Formats: sequence, C-alpha cells, structure tokens
Amino acid sequence: MNHPHAERIRRLQRRLRERGADSAVAFPGPNLQYFTGFRGEPVDRFHALCLPAEGEPVVISPEGYASQARRSSVVESVETVPKNDPAQVAGALLERAGSRPDAVLVDDDAPHAVTAGLYDGLGPDRIGSAGPLFRSLRRRKDEAEVAALRRSAAVADAVSVEVRSLDAVGTTEAELATDIRTGLHGRGATGVSFDVVVGSGPNGADPALRYGDREIRSGEPVVIDFGCFLDGYASDQTRTVVFGGDPPDEFERVHEAVSAALEAGVDAVAPGVTAGAVDAAVRETIDEYGYADEFTHATGHGVGLAAHERLAIAEGDPTELEPGMVFSVEPGVYVEGAYGVRIEDLVVVTGDGAERLNDSPRTWRPLRSD
Amino acid sequence: MNHPHAERIRRLQRRLRERGADSAVAFPGPNLQYFTGFRGEPVDRFHALCLPAEGEPVVISPEGYASQARRSSVVESVETVPKNDPAQVAGALLERAGSRPDAVLVDDDAPHAVTAGLYDGLGPDRIGSAGPLFRSLRRRKDEAEVAALRRSAAVADAVSVEVRSLDAVGTTEAELATDIRTGLHGRGATGVSFDVVVGSGPNGADPALRYGDREIRSGEPVVIDFGCFLDGYASDQTRTVVFGGDPPDEFERVHEAVSAALEAGVDAVAPGVTAGAVDAAVRETIDEYGYADEFTHATGHGVGLAAHERLAIAEGDPTELEPGMVFSVEPGVYVEGAYGVRIEDLVVVTGDGAERLNDSPRTWRPLRSD
Repeated sequence: MNHPHAERIRRLQRRLRERGADSAVAFPGPNLQYFTGFRGEPVDRFHALCLPAEGEPVVISPEGYASQARRSSVVESVETVPKNDPAQVAGALLERAGSRPDAVLVDDDAPHAVTAGLYDGLGPDRIGSAGPLFRSLRRRKDEAEVAALRRSAAVADAVSVEVRSLDAVGTTEAELATDIRTGLHGRGATGVSFDVVVGSGPNGADPALRYGDREIRSGEPVVIDFGCFLDGYASDQTRTVVFGGDPPDEFERVHEAVSAALEAGVDAVAPGVTAGAVDAAVRETIDEYGYADEFTHATGHGVGLAAHERLAIAEGDPTELEPGMVFSVEPGVYVEGAYGVRIEDLVVVTGDGAERLNDSPRTWRPLRSD
Repeated sequence: MNHPHAERIRRLQRRLRERGADSAVAFPGPNLQYFTGFRGEPVDRFHALCLPAEGEPVVISPEGYASQARRSSVVESVETVPKNDPAQVAGALLERAGSRPDAVLVDDDAPHAVTAGLYDGLGPDRIGSAGPLFRSLRRRKDEAEVAALRRSAAVADAVSVEVRSLDAVGTTEAELATDIRTGLHGRGATGVSFDVVVGSGPNGADPALRYGDREIRSGEPVVIDFGCFLDGYASDQTRTVVFGGDPPDEFERVHEAVSAALEAGVDAVAPGVTAGAVDAAVRETIDEYGYADEFTHATGHGVGLAAHERLAIAEGDPTELEPGMVFSVEPGVYVEGAYGVRIEDLVVVTGDGAERLNDSPRTWRPLRSD
C-alpha cells in the first residue's frame, strides 16, 4: 500500500506503539479525512474511525451510510451500527477499547454526544486526547496535500481578482460577501473555509468582525478576507482594496508598511527558523513604520484540512519550521474608528525557504475595466 | 425583554430549575445560535455560553473574538479568556460549576478539546448531557423560526427550478453539484446545509451516495437533494428529474407511487398524530404500489438550525406532533442497479394540519426553454 492515507495510518500506528497507547479514534471532520479521504459531515456525524496500535483500522458507520463510507474511504473494514445514534457508536468503540491508561485517544473534535458514552463506559483514566498526535502528523503536508492547497489557493486568488474588478461602491458588505461565496462555489469550491470577512471603513478596524449591512463608500479601505474548501483543503487570503475615489491621507503609508511586513515575514521563512522569528520579522517591519501598537494579533496560523490549524506564528513561539508546514503570514494595522489594512498569503516551507501559495495582486488599487 | 432569544433563555432556565441542574453550556453551532443568535464557527470554536439556572448567562470568548460575540449576541455579559485555547475555556467553565450531580449539562456538539478538561476537573458524575433539554426546546419552532425556514426553503425551491431548466445531459454529477451550490450562494445562502446529492441512474439507487464524476445520460432519472443555510436556518428538498429523452419503462409508475406517498404523508400530519402514523401513511401508499421493499429508509427527520434534527418520522415512533414542529417528508423507491426516485418537502405542523414550506414543481419532467 503506497496510498498516502495508508501511509498516514501506518505512521499513526507506529506513534501509538511508541506511546504505549492502544488506539486512537477519529471523527468526521479533518481528522477522519486525513486518514481515510472521507470527511463525513454533521448529517452523519456519528461515524468513527477506530485506529488500533496493531491490526486493521475499522470505520464504524450507521447502517444507511456504510456504502458511502466504503466507497469514499481507503479503510476496507466497515462495521455498521443499527442506528445513526451516538450511544451505538460509543458502544462499538467500547467493545474495542483496551485496558491500559490512555486506552483510547479521542479526537479533539469528537462531539460530546459520543464521548459522554465513552467516559461512562471507560472512566476518565482510560481516555486521552488524540489532539497532539493528530496535529503532529498533520503539520507537515505531503506533496498531494500541498498540491491540493495550491489548487484551493488558486480558486481564492481568482475570486480575489474578480472582486477587485467589481464596481463595489454603494453595495453592502453582505452583498459583496454573497458575490465572493458565489464566485468560490462557481469555481468548484465545496464550501467556504470560514465565514467571509468584508470590513469596510471603521468595520475593517476590528479584525474579528465578519460583515454587516454597511454600504461600501468611495475611497474607503475594505478588508476582504476569505477562503474555500477544495478537495477538502482550505485556502485563506486577505487583500485590502479601495473602491472608487482616493484613499484617506495616511492610508498609502499604512498599506506600504503592511506590504513590507508581509514580504519580510515570507523572506524570514526557512526550515529551522522558529515561528517566533517569522513573527518578529513582521513585527519589526511594522514597528519601523511606527504602527507596532496597531498590529493587534499574531502573524499567522497553520492551514490544511482546516482553515485554522494550531501552528502559531506568534511572538516568542519556539516551534522550529519544517519543510511541508503551511501557514498564513497576515500582518495587519488597525486604525480605530477609521479603517483596517491586512494582507495575507499562505506559504509552504520548502527545503531551503518558502513558496507562496497565493499570487493575486496585493495592491490596494481596484481593477477597472474602463 | 421580549426578544425571542431572551425568551428561549428564560424557558431553558425554568427547565433547569425543574430538573435541579445548576447550568447548561452551549457551544458554537445550532445551540449557541438558538440562545444568542450567534452561531460561531470552527475558526473560533472555543467559545462557550454558560446558562445558569439562576442569574445572567455569560459568553466565554477568546480575547480577539469578544467584540464579535458582543455585537452578534443577545447575551450582554461576555467574559474573555486570554487565548483561543480549549483549556482556558474549560477553566472558565469550571469556575462556574456547581457541586450537584448534573452540575453542568453539556451540549451534545461540544468538542472533546473542551469536554476533556471538564471531565478532568469535575469528574463524570457532575457532567450530564444537555441534548434532551436543548432538543425539546428547539423542536417547536416559533414564528420567527418558521419565517426563516420558509425563506431558506424558497431559495432551495428557486434553485430547484433553475436546475430543471438546465441542459444537463452530458454534464457530470459533480458539475451539476457545482451549479447547485453556485445558485444557492448567489441567492444569499451562507452555506449548504449538507453536501449536495446528485444521483444519476444507478447512483440514485443508493440514498447515502452524494455525487461523483458520472455523466448524466439522456432519459435517466436523477435524484437531486440539497439545501442551504439562510439566516442560520436549513432547507432540505429533493426532486427526481429526467433530462433529455424518455424515462425507463416502469419509471412513471414508481414516480407516481412516490408522489402519492408524499401527498399521503403530508395529509396525515396534524397536531396529536404520532410521527409513526405519518410514516405509516407514506409506507402504506408505497406498499399499495408494490414497492414496500424498495423504500429503505425512514420517512423524515426534523429540520431547523441543523438540516438533520433528531425528530424521527419513522416506523412506530410514538412522538406526538405539535404545532411548530418542522420536518421532512421524503419517500423514496430505490431500484437497485437502475435508478432511485425520491421526492421531499418540508412541512410545519399548524394548529389543525400542516403547511408545506416547499412549492417547486414535483414532476420528473424538466423545464425546457425551447
């Protein structure tokens, strides 16, 4: 078996044995997809993938969904439980649980509907978290994953160009968000990887806001941050665009600061460099322009089968970068009550530096057809 | 406070006191949205809403996301934890936990990332499931909810009409799925409520399959099942369409059987009638046509803030229908190796019967512009 999913399962099993754990369990979402190619979804959320330290993994699936699990997954063994019921799935998992401490390492995404039954049946001592193990495997992307991330980023880039060419003055943030979602899905995306951000004027100054009914005005910076899922992999990119007339006085300098910080961040990426050093390169550049206090969040986060994976490109983070890691570099400057500027690209760590996954224009200027 | 969210919180608190439980906790997803209007999403999934039996509810939110929680939610009290970290959220919840058994009733959707910390801190005896309580509140929809469900169904209906008018012969199932997603998002949907089903010919005979790369052929029945989220509420409807030439021999009779079963099911819906009686009306009709063995699933499921809520319109189910319940009626006949036929509408139970939420054509005939 040279299939990437089979190889991932083998690596997991090796780690389980090293740890002395009996098994790990993955649930619908990124972890199930990582090991089987089959993501599942809330409708049939009481699937589970039981991965023993030794022997064959088995998908536990409600009766009506077994054919789907069988067709979509690399795992050959599918056991059905009679109903799409969490207690049935917990019961099937309990039958397989060993007796050691950490007998079962459970997916961080597992819903309480199922884990409640496991805690009742096994007691807390025999249940551990599969989070660290799953994260450490998923952190370095293989070639097939990087290729999928590149395709997903290309869809986001294409929509970014399209948005830039719209006559957006007078439309609302929500309407622009609709245009973005429509563009992504029209290019084959199966979903957005997080809810779209369209922050016009003062709304752009709060990086946590999504969009509202505010009309976009001429000459106003608009922070536009979105991504999609394609073949299961997430994209995530941000551009700040000024539609219509000229931007506010200091804006061009702020945009230049953020652009320079993005370049400095990408240039700093290489194997062996710490995540904190990349953050520092970004932060120092913004500081040189005098906006350090207006850069209020970390530089970036891991991206893969989820739009936010727990790799933190943050102040002082000691994680050493390794080839295959994929993360965002997204400096921002937020001028309270006025506007925000954020520019974000995804990068993959290569053998000797970084490759960008995004290549759409980073300028604040719109594309005009006239 | 007459806001529907405030009223929902009051009802929950009353039930908690009746049960002798100290508090319930809702996590991002349908339950958080039900009580606050704010759904949250995986990116900021370590929010929690703590609902005590007495006193004010509080949203626990990572620092960067507090402004979003504050703006989007009816709950006034927001407490921040320093990082978007499950341990921090679990810690904040532990500080609030009472000492009774069932001190904390936890959302069925709560991720293990947070619940692991609660089990460690409280032990299994003080943790219960909020599932039954949340479900019983959410089951009967109020007027605002029915209105949102109607709008969501109208978007799905409009796309259904659009799909019928496509020249779909020669396109793949996946391409038609892309057209459907694009149509839904273009009409303002914020997402699909479950992954689109396009089952052409033999693929339609397995109700659990989604779509693949198979080309749609002339004269072939295609099961098309999809829904979206609009204002947080799900739609879900199915039509079976034959593009191009004439359908297979027995097909018209099968389609007639399924249509008649849908009508019989909708006609049977009324307050006080059991879910099982609705299923029986559907099943008997299909049986009269001689296809009982080919109707391999239950008649329907609840629909609301999720596309599948646990109200089962299934054989023998004793649940008595009440005004405000919303569910699908979706008979299907699956001719193995050949094709499937399924037709699905959503209904809301009214004071004396049922109102359909869908009104797009149910015929198998396509819409041709020529």
